[in-house]
Amino acid sequence: MGDFSRAQKLGAEALGSFFLFVTVVGSGIMAENLAGGNVAIALLGNTLATGAILFVLIAILAPISGAHFNPAVTFVMILRKELTLNVGVLFVIAQLIGGLIGVWAAHLMFELPVFQLSEKTRTGGGQWLGELIATFGLLFTILGTVRFRPDWVAPAVGLYISAGYWFTSSTSFANPAITVGRAFSNSFAGIAPADVAGFVAAQFVGAALAWMVTRWMFAPSPATEN
Amino acid sequence: MGDFSRAQKLGAEALGSFFLFVTVVGSGIMAENLAGGNVAIALLGNTLATGAILFVLIAILAPISGAHFNPAVTFVMILRKELTLNVGVLFVIAQLIGGLIGVWAAHLMFELPVFQLSEKTRTGGGQWLGELIATFGLLFTILGTVRFRPDWVAPAVGLYISAGYWFTSSTSFANPAITVGRAFSNSFAGIAPADVAGFVAAQFVGAALAWMVTRWMFAPSPATEN
Amino acid sequence: MGDFSRAQKLGAEALGSFFLFVTVVGSGIMAENLAGGNVAIALLGNTLATGAILFVLIAILAPISGAHFNPAVTFVMILRKELTLNVGVLFVIAQLIGGLIGVWAAHLMFELPVFQLSEKTRTGGGQWLGELIATFGLLFTILGTVRFRPDWVAPAVGLYISAGYWFTSSTSFANPAITVGRAFSNSFAGIAPADVAGFVAAQFVGAALAWMVTRWMFAPSPATEN
Amino acid sequence: MGDFSRAQKLGAEALGSFFLFVTVVGSGIMAENLAGGNVAIALLGNTLATGAILFVLIAILAPISGAHFNPAVTFVMILRKELTLNVGVLFVIAQLIGGLIGVWAAHLMFELPVFQLSEKTRTGGGQWLGELIATFGLLFTILGTVRFRPDWVAPAVGLYISAGYWFTSSTSFANPAITVGRAFSNSFAGIAPADVAGFVAAQFVGAALAWMVTRWMFAPSPATEN
Repeated sequence: MGDFSRAQKLGAEALGSFFLFVTVVGSGIMAENLAGGNVAIALLGNTLATGAILFVLIAILAPISGAHFNPAVTFVMILRKELTLNVGVLFVIAQLIGGLIGVWAAHLMFELPVFQLSEKTRTGGGQWLGELIATFGLLFTILGTVRFRPDWVAPAVGLYISAGYWFTSSTSFANPAITVGRAFSNSFAGIAPADVAGFVAAQFVGAALAWMVTRWMFAPSPATEN
Repeated sequence: MGDFSRAQKLGAEALGSFFLFVTVVGSGIMAENLAGGNVAIALLGNTLATGAILFVLIAILAPISGAHFNPAVTFVMILRKELTLNVGVLFVIAQLIGGLIGVWAAHLMFELPVFQLSEKTRTGGGQWLGELIATFGLLFTILGTVRFRPDWVAPAVGLYISAGYWFTSSTSFANPAITVGRAFSNSFAGIAPADVAGFVAAQFVGAALAWMVTRWMFAPSPATEN
Repeated sequence: MGDFSRAQKLGAEALGSFFLFVTVVGSGIMAENLAGGNVAIALLGNTLATGAILFVLIAILAPISGAHFNPAVTFVMILRKELTLNVGVLFVIAQLIGGLIGVWAAHLMFELPVFQLSEKTRTGGGQWLGELIATFGLLFTILGTVRFRPDWVAPAVGLYISAGYWFTSSTSFANPAITVGRAFSNSFAGIAPADVAGFVAAQFVGAALAWMVTRWMFAPSPATEN
Repeated sequence: MGDFSRAQKLGAEALGSFFLFVTVVGSGIMAENLAGGNVAIALLGNTLATGAILFVLIAILAPISGAHFNPAVTFVMILRKELTLNVGVLFVIAQLIGGLIGVWAAHLMFELPVFQLSEKTRTGGGQWLGELIATFGLLFTILGTVRFRPDWVAPAVGLYISAGYWFTSSTSFANPAITVGRAFSNSFAGIAPADVAGFVAAQFVGAALAWMVTRWMFAPSPATEN
């Protein structure tokens, strides 16, 4: 990543997080407004928009900053020594600042009060297991495509999260920064502030587990017969 | 783009705009006819068709004309000195002519009156912010993929607009020519003629901002430590 | 295509047409059965299945037979002298035989009477214009990707037809063989036998127009200034 | 596949099957919970998630184990002598263990009883024909892309199954392991244990037929005139 300055990298993380968060929150508002109470239809729109924007943002910004937009990803990149702790902390700050501006921009676009706190309860062992599996799978997807199909990180992440919105009970936040950001939106994508800590803890556990499993599973070994 | 004559380039802009506009307007009519009043379902069909046709048209026509179909894109290409002002003006004329024929062809196909003016109000600061963000993101997507993944301009633009239909309050027109074209259709995709100017102004502001931001963010810099 | 025998090529056309037709008719039956009367939801399922199977079939069978599955495509390939008239006629026969078996297999799978004739009226100038534009665009997509992005014929055709299901009033049959095949199914995808001729005529006109336009638009020219 | 140990290969089969089964069952539960009784909308969510996760899992795990997750695929690979019978049996055991843990994890996430048996009847000649065609097509897709477009196995399988969910009366299980796994879930994706044998038999017949047809159709031949 050495061809870009630190400011450019932090700018990429902030701008990417802006677009990711504005998409998650904005498409949730749009979908709920239009779906006439059918939550599955609303989730289809929310899924389509989120998966699509992830493809775009990663395709463009990965060459600059790695296109994390996600402290759980930054955390694993620090574990892998691809990023120093210092730079990692700056990445997370950029993600939170850019992302929160994205949440507020979504509210402005839809002419809602800018500053909100979610009242949507998302808690319990089932959803925590959901976030653990979701974030495990996200890091597995990133580390696996980086290892075997580096050209396909962008479509794989977009499609993984599209699947995760449906196969996990928690709808796969899989991102501590977006969990914080969603707490500031009392809309379709929101999560009550009191429930943030449980989600974030499960996300970091899932990310760490993925780091451990992939270190074993993706390491080259001596040849074996089939 | 030097391997094609100016007439071929203008033909590509006109034909591409024809298919883009016929798709936006035609799929909107089809979706509204079939969706039984559920606007989210109608928007799903409209989104799918628009994203898909953008992929196809850009994949084929980018080698001829650059596949703009959009005066905001042509404007930024003039700023980047990839196009002279004179040719740019001809591009915009081709976009408008091809596009309007597309709108009228959609009406003919669905056996509606050919010449219509929209009565759908689309105005206000929230929607103008939507168009500004939408067009910023569209140019960011184009300039970013041209810079980092030139093979992926077509899927990235198709997916970006698919996301934009859902995450912006204005459903991401992001194109001054299509804004004019939609004013001539009193259907799902329409916009009242009086509201066109506000949308178009916001689109050009967003495009210019993207040009400025990407000039800084995408420029190579001396190497930095991670 | 010289690495495969004529029998393999005809087998590829027949098997590909089988899967294309079984998908168009089968997914139409499934979608209508499940959609509870909301035709837009049914068309979403029908679109998704048709676009997806086209990608798969073209990706696999293009290297063997060219993956036409469509007499309008075979017709243009004869015009382009890529196929002799004799072989072209055999291709069309293979498409019809494979395709009809596909229609009947769909009926068997859904435990419907095997032999049916459609009673669904699809006629009139609007729909004929729809088929003309749809088939023009299909050939434009095929000839354009073959010319500029030969790796992308499969995704482009899948996405073009996905768009066409929504932007044309006729839902883009765009294929004389499938028009005949659908006449034998009194289900979602059907067309009354009396209406087949109008659709087929419009399809061949659209295909011939695409051949003429692309001969001019895609031909290399001396360089011009931008 | 010689660069990975047998343990890594079995781990890849188990982990891939875990994610595939958790997605099929979990997205079925989510979709049914949210769709308000419209089964077509539920199937759209189920389809989207399944197709997306297949793309991701095959892209990452094919270089390690071949990414079967399916005894019918393993069976054909043994017929093709790419795998010994001994290793094949271990693959199937890994698929069943990983997959069943996935089914149970889905139940845990959605706070349902972990151990369930399905009560959903899926039987009869129409559905058996559906499974035969579905599995024939799946192996045809895999063997065809491996032969002609090896980079595209992942998107082709994801899209093929997406189509199959709609065009077959049985919704294309196309996988004996997932058929067993679904018998342990009394949810949207379930199948009554008594109906498993019929589905599995049809799947192996379809797989064997695909092996035979593709041996002829994909074999290079002396050149022929067009």
